Amino acid sequence: MTDSLSEAEQRSREIFARQAVMATLGASIVHFEPGRVRVAMPHDNAFTQQDGFLHAGIIATIVDTALGCAAGSVMPAGSGVLSIEFKINMLRPARADRYLAEGRVLKAGRRVTVCQGELRENDAEGRILASMQASMIRVESP
Amino acid sequence: MTDSLSEAEQRSREIFARQAVMATLGASIVHFEPGRVRVAMPHDNAFTQQDGFLHAGIIATIVDTALGCAAGSVMPAGSGVLSIEFKINMLRPARADRYLAEGRVLKAGRRVTVCQGELRENDAEGRILASMQASMIRVESP
Amino acid sequence: MTDSLSEAEQRSREIFARQAVMATLGASIVHFEPGRVRVAMPHDNAFTQQDGFLHAGIIATIVDTALGCAAGSVMPAGSGVLSIEFKINMLRPARADRYLAEGRVLKAGRRVTVCQGELRENDAEGRILASMQASMIRVESP
Amino acid sequence: MTDSLSEAEQRSREIFARQAVMATLGASIVHFEPGRVRVAMPHDNAFTQQDGFLHAGIIATIVDTALGCAAGSVMPAGSGVLSIEFKINMLRPARADRYLAEGRVLKAGRRVTVCQGELRENDAEGRILASMQASMIRVESP
Repeated sequence: MTDSLSEAEQRSREIFARQAVMATLGASIVHFEPGRVRVAMPHDNAFTQQDGFLHAGIIATIVDTALGCAAGSVMPAGSGVLSIEFKINMLRPARADRYLAEGRVLKAGRRVTVCQGELRENDAEGRILASMQASMIRVESP
Repeated sequence: MTDSLSEAEQRSREIFARQAVMATLGASIVHFEPGRVRVAMPHDNAFTQQDGFLHAGIIATIVDTALGCAAGSVMPAGSGVLSIEFKINMLRPARADRYLAEGRVLKAGRRVTVCQGELRENDAEGRILASMQASMIRVESP
Repeated sequence: MTDSLSEAEQRSREIFARQAVMATLGASIVHFEPGRVRVAMPHDNAFTQQDGFLHAGIIATIVDTALGCAAGSVMPAGSGVLSIEFKINMLRPARADRYLAEGRVLKAGRRVTVCQGELRENDAEGRILASMQASMIRVESP
Repeated sequence: MTDSLSEAEQRSREIFARQAVMATLGASIVHFEPGRVRVAMPHDNAFTQQDGFLHAGIIATIVDTALGCAAGSVMPAGSGVLSIEFKINMLRPARADRYLAEGRVLKAGRRVTVCQGELRENDAEGRILASMQASMIRVESP
Protein backbone atom coordinates (compact mmCIF):
# COMPACT_ATOMS: atom_id res chain seq x y z
CA MET A 1 0.00 0.00 0.00
CA THR A 2 1.25 3.42 -0.89
CA ASP A 3 0.17 7.00 -0.31
CA SER A 4 -1.54 6.88 -3.65
CA LEU A 5 -4.33 4.65 -2.35
CA SER A 6 -7.52 6.39 -1.33
CA GLU A 7 -8.46 6.41 2.36
CA ALA A 8 -11.35 4.05 1.57
CA GLU A 9 -9.13 1.59 -0.26
CA GLN A 10 -6.47 1.68 2.47
CA ARG A 11 -9.12 1.09 5.10
CA SER A 12 -10.71 -1.77 3.14
CA ARG A 13 -7.38 -3.42 2.53
CA GLU A 14 -6.47 -3.14 6.20
CA ILE A 15 -9.80 -4.65 7.26
CA PHE A 16 -9.35 -7.40 4.69
CA ALA A 17 -5.83 -8.08 6.00
CA ARG A 18 -7.24 -8.46 9.51
CA GLN A 19 -9.72 -11.13 8.36
CA ALA A 20 -7.76 -14.26 9.26
CA VAL A 21 -10.17 -16.38 7.26
CA MET A 22 -9.11 -14.63 4.04
CA ALA A 23 -5.50 -15.69 4.57
CA THR A 24 -6.70 -19.18 5.45
CA LEU A 25 -8.58 -19.31 2.12
CA GLY A 26 -5.69 -17.75 0.19
CA ALA A 27 -7.94 -14.90 -0.91
CA SER A 28 -6.94 -11.41 -2.02
CA ILE A 29 -8.52 -8.19 -3.26
CA VAL A 30 -7.84 -7.99 -6.99
CA HIS A 31 -9.91 -4.93 -7.89
CA PHE A 32 -11.03 -1.92 -5.88
CA GLU A 33 -13.12 1.01 -6.92
CA PRO A 34 -15.78 2.87 -4.94
CA GLY A 35 -18.85 0.67 -4.87
CA ARG A 36 -17.26 -2.33 -6.61
CA VAL A 37 -14.68 -4.74 -5.19
CA ARG A 38 -13.39 -8.07 -6.47
CA VAL A 39 -11.84 -10.81 -4.38
CA ALA A 40 -10.13 -13.89 -5.84
CA MET A 41 -9.24 -17.23 -4.31
CA PRO A 42 -7.74 -20.44 -5.66
CA HIS A 43 -9.53 -23.78 -5.41
CA ASP A 44 -8.47 -25.73 -2.36
CA ASN A 45 -9.74 -29.24 -1.60
CA ALA A 46 -9.68 -28.41 2.11
CA PHE A 47 -12.87 -26.38 1.65
CA THR A 48 -14.98 -28.74 -0.41
CA GLN A 49 -18.26 -30.51 0.22
CA GLN A 50 -18.96 -34.20 -0.38
CA ASP A 51 -18.65 -34.14 -4.18
CA GLY A 52 -15.47 -32.10 -4.35
CA PHE A 53 -17.22 -28.80 -5.05
CA LEU A 54 -16.45 -25.67 -3.06
CA HIS A 55 -18.81 -25.73 -0.06
CA ALA A 56 -21.74 -23.30 -0.31
CA GLY A 57 -20.69 -21.69 2.97
CA ILE A 58 -17.17 -21.05 1.68
CA ILE A 59 -18.69 -19.52 -1.44
CA ALA A 60 -20.71 -17.34 0.93
CA THR A 61 -17.56 -16.44 2.86
CA ILE A 62 -15.73 -15.06 -0.13
CA VAL A 63 -18.74 -13.32 -1.68
CA ASP A 64 -19.81 -11.81 1.65
CA THR A 65 -16.34 -10.34 2.11
CA ALA A 66 -16.42 -8.85 -1.40
CA LEU A 67 -19.79 -7.27 -0.64
CA GLY A 68 -18.57 -5.98 2.73
CA CYS A 69 -15.53 -4.37 1.09
CA ALA A 70 -17.81 -2.79 -1.52
CA ALA A 71 -20.03 -1.41 1.24
CA GLY A 72 -17.01 -0.11 3.15
CA SER A 73 -15.69 1.56 0.00
CA VAL A 74 -18.54 4.09 0.04
CA MET A 75 -18.63 4.74 3.80
CA PRO A 76 -17.00 7.70 5.53
CA ALA A 77 -13.50 7.51 7.00
CA GLY A 78 -13.28 5.52 10.21
CA SER A 79 -16.15 3.21 9.36
CA GLY A 80 -16.21 -0.48 9.96
CA VAL A 81 -18.77 -2.72 8.31
CA LEU A 82 -20.71 -5.79 9.45
CA SER A 83 -23.06 -8.02 7.46
CA ILE A 84 -26.36 -8.38 9.22
CA GLU A 85 -27.86 -10.80 6.72
CA PHE A 86 -27.28 -12.31 3.31
CA LYS A 87 -29.08 -14.56 0.93
CA ILE A 88 -27.30 -16.65 -1.67
CA ASN A 89 -28.52 -18.79 -4.54
CA MET A 90 -26.20 -21.49 -5.80
CA LEU A 91 -26.45 -21.60 -9.60
CA ARG A 92 -23.94 -24.30 -10.54
CA PRO A 93 -21.65 -26.70 -8.73
CA ALA A 94 -18.48 -24.74 -7.98
CA ARG A 95 -15.32 -26.41 -9.27
CA ALA A 96 -12.75 -24.24 -11.00
CA ASP A 97 -9.05 -23.51 -10.64
CA ARG A 98 -9.80 -20.13 -9.21
CA TYR A 99 -12.87 -18.18 -8.14
CA LEU A 100 -13.69 -14.51 -8.51
CA ALA A 101 -16.22 -12.81 -6.24
CA GLU A 102 -17.54 -9.37 -7.07
CA GLY A 103 -19.47 -7.15 -4.67
CA ARG A 104 -21.38 -4.04 -5.71
CA VAL A 105 -23.29 -1.43 -3.74
CA LEU A 106 -26.92 -1.33 -4.79
CA LYS A 107 -27.93 1.38 -2.32
CA ALA A 108 -25.79 3.13 0.26
CA GLY A 109 -27.91 4.18 3.19
CA ARG A 110 -27.31 6.10 6.37
CA ARG A 111 -27.99 2.99 8.40
CA VAL A 112 -28.09 0.06 6.02
CA THR A 113 -26.17 -0.47 2.80
CA VAL A 114 -27.53 -3.09 0.42
CA CYS A 115 -25.10 -4.94 -1.83
CA GLN A 116 -25.27 -7.53 -4.57
CA GLY A 117 -22.66 -9.72 -6.09
CA GLU A 118 -21.73 -13.10 -7.40
CA LEU A 119 -19.05 -15.75 -7.63
CA ARG A 120 -17.67 -16.67 -11.03
CA GLU A 121 -15.36 -19.35 -12.35
CA ASN A 122 -11.80 -18.09 -12.79
CA ASP A 123 -12.37 -14.44 -13.76
CA ALA A 124 -14.88 -11.72 -14.61
CA GLU A 125 -15.79 -13.52 -17.82
CA GLY A 126 -16.26 -16.86 -16.10
CA ARG A 127 -19.59 -18.60 -15.66
CA ILE A 128 -21.64 -17.41 -12.72
CA LEU A 129 -21.70 -19.90 -9.83
CA ALA A 130 -23.67 -18.12 -7.12
CA SER A 131 -25.45 -14.83 -6.54
CA MET A 132 -25.83 -12.95 -3.24
CA GLN A 133 -27.91 -10.06 -1.91
CA ALA A 134 -26.98 -8.68 1.51
CA SER A 135 -27.45 -5.92 4.09
CA MET A 136 -24.43 -4.27 5.69
CA ILE A 137 -24.33 -1.83 8.58
CA ARG A 138 -21.73 0.75 9.43
CA VAL A 139 -19.98 0.44 12.79
CA GLU A 140 -17.42 2.67 14.44
CA SER A 141 -14.06 1.19 13.65
CA PRO A 142 -12.18 0.18 16.79
CA MET B 1 -20.64 -46.34 13.21
CA THR B 2 -22.25 -49.61 13.99
CA ASP B 3 -24.95 -51.79 12.51
CA SER B 4 -27.36 -50.18 14.90
CA LEU B 5 -27.36 -46.89 13.02
CA SER B 6 -30.29 -46.28 10.71
CA GLU B 7 -29.62 -46.20 6.97
CA ALA B 8 -30.34 -42.45 7.00
CA GLU B 9 -27.89 -41.79 9.79
CA GLN B 10 -25.18 -43.92 8.18
CA ARG B 11 -25.68 -42.13 4.90
CA SER B 12 -25.61 -38.68 6.54
CA ARG B 13 -22.49 -39.53 8.50
CA GLU B 14 -20.78 -40.82 5.37
CA ILE B 15 -21.67 -37.67 3.43
CA PHE B 16 -20.50 -35.55 6.34
CA ALA B 17 -17.22 -37.47 6.46
CA ARG B 18 -16.70 -36.74 2.75
CA GLN B 19 -17.07 -32.98 3.32
CA ALA B 20 -13.40 -32.03 3.57
CA VAL B 21 -14.37 -28.61 4.88
CA MET B 22 -15.90 -30.19 8.00
CA ALA B 23 -12.58 -31.78 8.92
CA THR B 24 -10.84 -28.49 8.16
CA LEU B 25 -13.20 -26.74 10.59
CA GLY B 26 -12.93 -29.53 13.18
CA ALA B 27 -16.68 -30.06 13.02
CA SER B 28 -18.63 -33.18 13.93
CA ILE B 29 -22.21 -34.44 14.09
CA VAL B 30 -23.21 -34.52 17.76
CA HIS B 31 -26.90 -35.35 17.49
CA PHE B 32 -28.89 -37.15 14.81
CA GLU B 33 -32.58 -37.88 14.65
CA PRO B 34 -34.87 -37.84 11.63
CA GLY B 35 -35.52 -34.19 10.80
CA ARG B 36 -33.11 -32.75 13.37
CA VAL B 37 -29.30 -32.80 13.28
CA ARG B 38 -26.74 -30.96 15.36
CA VAL B 39 -23.18 -30.16 14.33
CA ALA B 40 -20.55 -28.75 16.70
CA MET B 41 -17.25 -27.03 16.06
CA PRO B 42 -14.63 -25.38 18.26
CA HIS B 43 -13.60 -21.76 17.86
CA ASP B 44 -10.55 -21.36 15.65
CA ASN B 45 -8.91 -18.01 14.98
CA ALA B 46 -8.08 -19.17 11.46
CA PHE B 47 -11.71 -18.60 10.50
CA THR B 48 -12.35 -15.16 11.96
CA GLN B 49 -13.19 -11.79 10.46
CA GLN B 50 -11.51 -8.47 11.28
CA ASP B 51 -12.68 -8.23 14.89
CA GLY B 52 -11.90 -11.79 15.90
CA PHE B 53 -15.46 -13.05 15.50
CA LEU B 54 -16.25 -16.16 13.50
CA HIS B 55 -16.77 -15.01 9.89
CA ALA B 56 -20.42 -14.92 8.78
CA GLY B 57 -19.59 -17.24 5.88
CA ILE B 58 -18.07 -19.82 8.23
CA ILE B 59 -21.18 -19.58 10.38
CA ALA B 60 -23.13 -20.22 7.19
CA THR B 61 -20.89 -23.20 6.37
CA ILE B 62 -21.60 -25.01 9.60
CA VAL B 63 -25.30 -24.17 9.76
CA ASP B 64 -25.83 -25.08 6.08
CA THR B 65 -24.26 -28.48 6.68
CA ALA B 66 -26.51 -29.07 9.70
CA LEU B 67 -29.55 -28.19 7.60
CA GLY B 68 -28.36 -30.39 4.74
CA CYS B 69 -27.92 -33.33 7.10
CA ALA B 70 -31.40 -32.72 8.51
CA ALA B 71 -32.83 -32.69 4.98
CA GLY B 72 -30.95 -35.87 4.10
CA SER B 73 -32.24 -37.55 7.26
CA VAL B 74 -35.79 -37.63 5.88
CA MET B 75 -34.94 -38.58 2.29
CA PRO B 76 -35.13 -42.08 0.84
CA ALA B 77 -32.11 -44.38 0.74
CA GLY B 78 -29.56 -43.48 -1.89
CA SER B 79 -30.33 -39.77 -1.80
CA GLY B 80 -27.78 -37.02 -1.88
CA VAL B 81 -28.65 -33.48 -0.96
CA LEU B 82 -27.58 -30.08 -2.27
CA SER B 83 -28.43 -26.61 -0.97
CA ILE B 84 -29.82 -24.46 -3.70
CA GLU B 85 -30.16 -21.33 -1.57
CA PHE B 86 -30.01 -20.11 1.97
CA LYS B 87 -30.60 -16.92 3.88
CA ILE B 88 -28.97 -16.16 7.17
CA ASN B 89 -29.41 -13.36 9.70
CA MET B 90 -26.54 -12.67 12.06
CA LEU B 91 -27.97 -11.91 15.49
CA ARG B 92 -24.88 -11.38 17.61
CA PRO B 93 -21.11 -11.27 17.06
CA ALA B 94 -19.96 -14.90 17.22
CA ARG B 95 -17.19 -15.51 19.75
CA ALA B 96 -17.46 -18.57 21.95
CA ASP B 97 -15.30 -21.54 22.82
CA ARG B 98 -17.49 -23.79 20.78
CA TYR B 99 -20.45 -23.42 18.46
CA LEU B 100 -23.50 -25.61 18.01
CA ALA B 101 -25.52 -25.58 14.79
CA GLU B 102 -28.93 -27.20 14.64
CA GLY B 103 -30.83 -27.96 11.44
CA ARG B 104 -34.50 -28.93 11.31
CA VAL B 105 -36.79 -29.92 8.46
CA LEU B 106 -39.68 -27.51 8.13
CA LYS B 107 -41.26 -29.23 5.13
CA ALA B 108 -40.00 -32.27 3.26
CA GLY B 109 -41.08 -32.10 -0.36
CA ARG B 110 -40.80 -34.35 -3.35
CA ARG B 111 -38.55 -31.86 -5.05
CA VAL B 112 -37.57 -29.25 -2.48
CA THR B 113 -37.06 -29.67 1.26
CA VAL B 114 -37.14 -26.50 3.34
CA CYS B 115 -35.08 -26.37 6.52
CA GLN B 116 -34.49 -23.94 9.34
CA GLY B 117 -31.83 -23.77 11.97
CA GLU B 118 -29.48 -21.65 13.96
CA LEU B 119 -26.04 -21.36 15.48
CA ARG B 120 -25.69 -21.10 19.24
CA GLU B 121 -22.87 -20.38 21.63
CA ASN B 122 -21.41 -23.57 23.11
CA ASP B 123 -24.48 -25.82 23.31
CA ALA B 124 -28.24 -26.13 22.88
CA GLU B 125 -28.84 -23.75 25.78
CA GLY B 126 -26.40 -21.15 24.47
CA ARG B 127 -27.39 -17.76 23.12
CA ILE B 128 -28.50 -17.74 19.52
CA LEU B 129 -25.93 -16.21 17.15
CA ALA B 130 -27.45 -16.66 13.70
CA SER B 131 -30.58 -18.06 12.08
CA MET B 132 -30.88 -19.68 8.65
CA GLN B 133 -33.70 -20.68 6.30
CA ALA B 134 -32.76 -22.79 3.27
CA SER B 135 -33.96 -24.91 0.34
CA MET B 136 -32.42 -28.31 -0.30
CA ILE B 137 -32.90 -30.60 -3.27
CA ARG B 138 -32.48 -34.34 -3.53
CA VAL B 139 -29.91 -35.67 -5.97
CA GLU B 140 -29.03 -39.22 -6.88
CA SER B 141 -26.08 -40.18 -4.74
CA PRO B 142 -23.03 -41.05 -6.83
CA MET C 1 -59.27 -0.52 22.46
CA THR C 2 -59.50 0.34 26.08
CA ASP C 3 -57.24 1.80 28.73
CA SER C 4 -56.37 -1.71 29.70
CA LEU C 5 -54.26 -2.22 26.58
CA SER C 6 -50.54 -1.77 26.98
CA GLU C 7 -48.91 1.18 25.25
CA ALA C 8 -47.18 -1.24 22.87
CA GLU C 9 -50.43 -2.95 21.93
CA GLN C 10 -52.26 0.35 21.45
CA ARG C 11 -49.43 1.61 19.25
CA SER C 12 -49.32 -1.59 17.20
CA ARG C 13 -53.06 -1.60 16.71
CA GLU C 14 -53.01 2.03 15.66
CA ILE C 15 -50.23 1.39 13.15
CA PHE C 16 -52.08 -1.67 11.86
CA ALA C 17 -55.26 0.41 11.49
CA ARG C 18 -53.33 2.94 9.38
CA GLN C 19 -52.16 0.19 6.97
CA ALA C 20 -54.81 0.61 4.27
CA VAL C 21 -53.71 -2.68 2.70
CA MET C 22 -54.81 -4.59 5.82
CA ALA C 23 -58.38 -3.28 5.44
CA THR C 24 -58.22 -4.08 1.72
CA LEU C 25 -57.26 -7.68 2.59
CA GLY C 26 -59.83 -7.91 5.41
CA ALA C 27 -57.03 -8.67 7.89
CA SER C 28 -57.07 -8.15 11.64
CA ILE C 29 -54.83 -8.67 14.66
CA VAL C 30 -56.19 -11.67 16.53
CA HIS C 31 -53.49 -12.13 19.17
CA PHE C 32 -51.04 -9.73 20.73
CA GLU C 33 -48.38 -10.34 23.31
CA PRO C 34 -44.90 -8.86 23.58
CA GLY C 35 -42.78 -10.55 20.92
CA ARG C 36 -45.61 -12.56 19.34
CA VAL C 37 -48.46 -11.25 17.18
CA ARG C 38 -51.02 -13.07 15.05
CA VAL C 39 -52.88 -11.63 12.09
CA ALA C 40 -55.78 -13.39 10.35
CA MET C 41 -57.36 -12.87 6.95
CA PRO C 42 -60.09 -14.66 5.01
CA HIS C 43 -59.48 -16.13 1.59
CA ASP C 44 -60.43 -13.74 -1.21
CA ASN C 45 -60.24 -14.67 -4.88
CA ALA C 46 -59.23 -11.09 -5.68
CA PHE C 47 -55.74 -11.87 -4.37
CA THR C 48 -55.00 -15.17 -6.08
CA GLN C 49 -52.43 -16.27 -8.64
CA GLN C 50 -53.13 -18.27 -11.79
CA ASP C 51 -54.22 -21.51 -10.09
CA GLY C 52 -56.53 -19.93 -7.51
CA PHE C 53 -53.98 -20.03 -4.69
CA LEU C 54 -53.23 -16.98 -2.58
CA HIS C 55 -50.43 -15.11 -4.39
CA ALA C 56 -47.00 -15.48 -2.77
CA GLY C 57 -46.72 -11.70 -2.50
CA ILE C 58 -50.02 -11.47 -0.64
CA ILE C 59 -48.79 -14.21 1.68
CA ALA C 60 -45.70 -12.06 2.20
CA THR C 61 -47.89 -9.00 2.87
CA ILE C 62 -49.76 -10.60 5.73
CA VAL C 63 -46.77 -12.36 7.25
CA ASP C 64 -44.57 -9.27 6.97
CA THR C 65 -47.18 -7.22 8.83
CA ALA C 66 -47.38 -9.86 11.59
CA LEU C 67 -43.59 -9.75 11.94
CA GLY C 68 -43.57 -5.96 11.94
CA CYS C 69 -46.18 -5.88 14.70
CA ALA C 70 -44.14 -8.38 16.70
CA ALA C 71 -41.05 -6.21 16.28
CA GLY C 72 -42.98 -3.11 17.30
CA SER C 73 -44.32 -4.91 20.37
CA VAL C 74 -40.87 -4.95 21.96
CA MET C 75 -39.77 -1.44 20.96
CA PRO C 76 -39.91 1.62 23.21
CA ALA C 77 -42.88 3.99 23.19
CA GLY C 78 -43.04 6.26 20.16
CA SER C 79 -41.32 3.77 17.85
CA GLY C 80 -42.37 3.05 14.31
CA VAL C 81 -41.09 0.00 12.47
CA LEU C 82 -40.09 -0.65 8.86
CA SER C 83 -39.08 -3.92 7.19
CA ILE C 84 -35.78 -3.55 5.43
CA GLU C 85 -35.73 -7.08 4.02
CA PHE C 86 -37.49 -10.40 4.22
CA LYS C 87 -37.11 -13.87 2.83
CA ILE C 88 -39.99 -16.25 2.46
CA ASN C 89 -40.19 -19.92 1.49
CA MET C 90 -43.49 -21.18 0.12
CA LEU C 91 -44.11 -24.64 1.55
CA ARG C 92 -47.50 -25.56 0.11
CA PRO C 93 -50.01 -24.02 -2.28
CA ALA C 94 -52.13 -21.67 -0.16
CA ARG C 95 -55.86 -22.33 -0.42
CA ALA C 96 -57.89 -22.30 2.78
CA ASP C 97 -60.97 -20.52 4.07
CA ARG C 98 -58.86 -18.37 6.30
CA TYR C 99 -55.16 -17.78 6.93
CA LEU C 100 -53.28 -17.14 10.13
CA ALA C 101 -49.91 -15.38 10.16
CA GLU C 102 -47.75 -15.40 13.25
CA GLY C 103 -44.73 -13.17 13.80
CA ARG C 104 -42.18 -13.67 16.56
CA VAL C 105 -39.12 -11.70 17.64
CA LEU C 106 -35.98 -13.76 17.36
CA LYS C 107 -33.62 -11.01 18.53
CA ALA C 108 -34.49 -7.45 19.45
CA GLY C 109 -31.57 -5.18 18.71
CA ARG C 110 -30.80 -1.53 19.21
CA ARG C 111 -30.75 -1.00 15.49
CA VAL C 112 -32.10 -4.14 13.85
CA THR C 113 -34.74 -6.53 15.15
CA VAL C 114 -34.86 -9.96 13.52
CA CYS C 115 -38.20 -11.76 13.34
CA GLN C 116 -39.48 -15.11 12.15
CA GLY C 117 -42.95 -16.33 11.43
CA GLU C 118 -45.20 -18.31 9.18
CA LEU C 119 -48.57 -18.53 7.51
CA ARG C 120 -50.88 -21.39 8.41
CA GLU C 121 -54.16 -22.70 7.09
CA ASN C 122 -57.10 -21.49 9.16
CA ASP C 123 -55.61 -21.31 12.65
CA ALA C 124 -52.62 -21.98 14.86
CA GLU C 125 -53.04 -25.74 14.42
CA GLY C 126 -53.33 -25.49 10.64
CA ARG C 127 -50.74 -26.76 8.22
CA ILE C 128 -47.84 -24.45 7.59
CA LEU C 129 -47.97 -22.74 4.18
CA ALA C 130 -45.00 -20.39 4.21
CA SER C 131 -42.13 -19.34 6.48
CA MET C 132 -40.47 -15.93 6.68
CA GLN C 133 -37.32 -14.47 8.23
CA ALA C 134 -36.99 -10.68 8.24
CA SER C 135 -35.08 -7.63 9.51
CA MET C 136 -36.97 -4.68 10.96
CA ILE C 137 -35.63 -1.28 11.93
CA ARG C 138 -37.01 1.22 14.40
CA VAL C 139 -37.98 4.65 13.12
CA GLU C 140 -39.26 7.67 14.97
CA SER C 141 -43.02 7.56 14.76
CA PRO C 142 -44.41 10.62 12.99
CA MET D 1 -52.62 -11.03 -28.57
CA THR D 2 -52.06 -11.98 -32.15
CA ASP D 3 -50.51 -14.86 -34.00
CA SER D 4 -47.30 -12.90 -34.10
CA LEU D 5 -46.64 -13.44 -30.38
CA SER D 6 -44.26 -16.23 -29.51
CA GLU D 7 -45.66 -19.27 -27.74
CA ALA D 8 -43.77 -18.24 -24.60
CA GLU D 9 -45.19 -14.74 -24.64
CA GLN D 10 -48.74 -15.98 -25.29
CA ARG D 11 -48.41 -18.45 -22.43
CA SER D 12 -46.98 -15.85 -20.06
CA ARG D 13 -49.69 -13.36 -20.93
CA GLU D 14 -52.38 -15.99 -20.41
CA ILE D 15 -50.95 -16.97 -17.01
CA PHE D 16 -50.69 -13.29 -16.08
CA ALA D 17 -54.31 -12.74 -17.12
CA ARG D 18 -55.38 -15.61 -14.84
CA GLN D 19 -53.67 -13.97 -11.82
CA ALA D 20 -56.68 -12.22 -10.29
CA VAL D 21 -54.38 -10.24 -8.02
CA MET D 22 -52.79 -8.53 -11.04
CA ALA D 23 -56.18 -7.15 -12.11
CA THR D 24 -56.86 -6.16 -8.52
CA LEU D 25 -53.60 -4.18 -8.49
CA GLY D 26 -54.20 -2.74 -11.97
CA ALA D 27 -50.95 -4.30 -13.18
CA SER D 28 -49.99 -5.16 -16.75
CA ILE D 29 -47.07 -6.63 -18.69
CA VAL D 30 -45.39 -3.74 -20.50
CA HIS D 31 -42.33 -5.48 -21.92
CA PHE D 32 -41.68 -9.09 -22.84
CA GLU D 33 -38.55 -10.70 -24.20
CA PRO D 34 -37.07 -14.09 -23.43
CA GLY D 35 -35.46 -13.81 -20.00
CA ARG D 36 -36.65 -10.26 -19.26
CA VAL D 37 -40.19 -9.14 -18.44
CA ARG D 38 -41.50 -5.83 -17.13
CA VAL D 39 -44.75 -5.31 -15.22
CA ALA D 40 -46.19 -1.88 -14.40
CA MET D 41 -48.79 -0.81 -11.87
CA PRO D 42 -50.18 2.57 -10.78
CA HIS D 43 -50.02 3.75 -7.20
CA ASP D 44 -53.19 2.94 -5.28
CA ASN D 45 -53.75 4.01 -1.68
CA ALA D 46 -55.65 0.78 -1.06
CA PHE D 47 -52.31 -1.07 -0.94
CA THR D 48 -50.28 1.16 1.35
CA GLN D 49 -48.73 0.70 4.76
CA GLN D 50 -49.04 3.09 7.71
CA ASP D 51 -47.08 5.99 6.17
CA GLY D 52 -48.75 5.93 2.78
CA PHE D 53 -45.97 3.98 1.07
CA LEU D 54 -46.69 0.91 -1.03
CA HIS D 55 -46.62 -2.05 1.38
CA ALA D 56 -43.48 -4.21 1.12
CA GLY D 57 -45.64 -7.26 0.45
CA ILE D 58 -47.36 -5.56 -2.46
CA ILE D 59 -43.95 -4.61 -3.81
CA ALA D 60 -43.06 -8.28 -3.49
CA THR D 61 -46.29 -9.26 -5.29
CA ILE D 62 -45.53 -7.25 -8.38
CA VAL D 63 -41.81 -8.05 -8.51
CA ASP D 64 -42.42 -11.76 -7.90
CA THR D 65 -44.84 -11.86 -10.81
CA ALA D 66 -42.32 -10.13 -13.07
CA LEU D 67 -39.68 -12.70 -12.07
CA GLY D 68 -42.12 -15.57 -12.58
CA CYS D 69 -42.97 -14.32 -16.07
CA ALA D 70 -39.27 -14.00 -16.86
CA ALA D 71 -38.71 -17.58 -15.68
CA GLY D 72 -41.67 -18.82 -17.72
CA SER D 73 -40.35 -17.02 -20.78
CA VAL D 74 -37.42 -19.41 -21.06
CA MET D 75 -39.26 -22.64 -20.20
CA PRO D 76 -40.55 -25.14 -22.76
CA ALA D 77 -44.11 -25.02 -24.11
CA GLY D 78 -46.72 -26.20 -21.65
CA SER D 79 -44.79 -25.14 -18.57
CA GLY D 80 -46.26 -23.45 -15.56
CA VAL D 81 -44.09 -21.73 -13.00
CA LEU D 82 -44.25 -21.40 -9.21
CA SER D 83 -42.04 -19.36 -6.88
CA ILE D 84 -40.65 -21.50 -4.14
CA GLU D 85 -38.87 -18.69 -2.34
CA PHE D 86 -37.85 -15.10 -2.71
CA LYS D 87 -35.85 -12.54 -0.81
CA ILE D 88 -36.38 -8.84 -1.15
CA ASN D 89 -34.50 -5.81 0.17
CA MET D 90 -36.40 -2.56 0.43
CA LEU D 91 -34.10 0.26 -0.63
CA ARG D 92 -36.33 3.34 -0.36
CA PRO D 93 -39.86 4.10 0.76
CA ALA D 94 -42.07 3.41 -2.26
CA ARG D 95 -44.27 6.35 -3.23
CA ALA D 96 -44.55 7.19 -6.90
CA ASP D 97 -47.33 7.67 -9.45
CA ARG D 98 -46.49 4.38 -11.05
CA TYR D 99 -44.15 1.48 -10.41
CA LEU D 100 -42.15 -0.64 -12.81
CA ALA D 101 -40.99 -4.13 -11.88
CA GLU D 102 -38.41 -5.94 -13.99
CA GLY D 103 -37.62 -9.64 -13.73
CA ARG D 104 -34.58 -11.28 -15.32
CA VAL D 105 -33.40 -14.88 -15.53
CA LEU D 106 -30.02 -15.30 -13.89
CA LYS D 107 -29.79 -19.05 -14.52
CA ALA D 108 -32.35 -21.30 -16.13
CA GLY D 109 -32.09 -24.79 -14.71
CA ARG D 110 -33.71 -28.09 -15.42
CA ARG D 111 -35.36 -28.03 -12.02
CA VAL D 112 -34.85 -24.57 -10.57
CA THR D 113 -34.63 -21.25 -12.37
CA VAL D 114 -33.08 -18.37 -10.45
CA CYS D 115 -34.23 -14.83 -11.20
CA GLN D 116 -33.37 -11.33 -10.11
CA GLY D 117 -35.20 -8.07 -10.49
CA GLU D 118 -36.23 -4.83 -8.95
CA LEU D 119 -38.97 -2.29 -8.55
CA ARG D 120 -38.39 1.24 -9.81
CA GLU D 121 -40.24 4.52 -9.56
CA ASN D 122 -42.28 5.25 -12.66
CA ASP D 123 -40.16 3.66 -15.41
CA ALA D 124 -36.92 1.94 -16.33
CA GLU D 125 -34.96 5.11 -15.54
CA GLY D 126 -36.64 5.61 -12.18
CA ARG D 127 -34.90 5.24 -8.85
CA ILE D 128 -34.64 1.69 -7.56
CA LEU D 129 -37.03 0.95 -4.67
CA ALA D 130 -36.51 -2.74 -3.98
CA SER D 131 -34.44 -5.68 -5.21
CA MET D 132 -35.44 -9.35 -5.28
CA GLN D 133 -33.69 -12.69 -5.80
CA ALA D 134 -35.91 -15.75 -6.20
CA SER D 135 -36.12 -19.44 -7.12
CA MET D 136 -38.81 -20.64 -9.52
CA ILE D 137 -39.74 -24.19 -10.42
CA ARG D 138 -41.40 -25.54 -13.53
CA VAL D 139 -44.72 -27.30 -13.12
CA GLU D 140 -46.89 -29.01 -15.70
CA SER D 141 -49.45 -26.48 -16.81
CA PRO D 142 -53.02 -27.64 -16.10
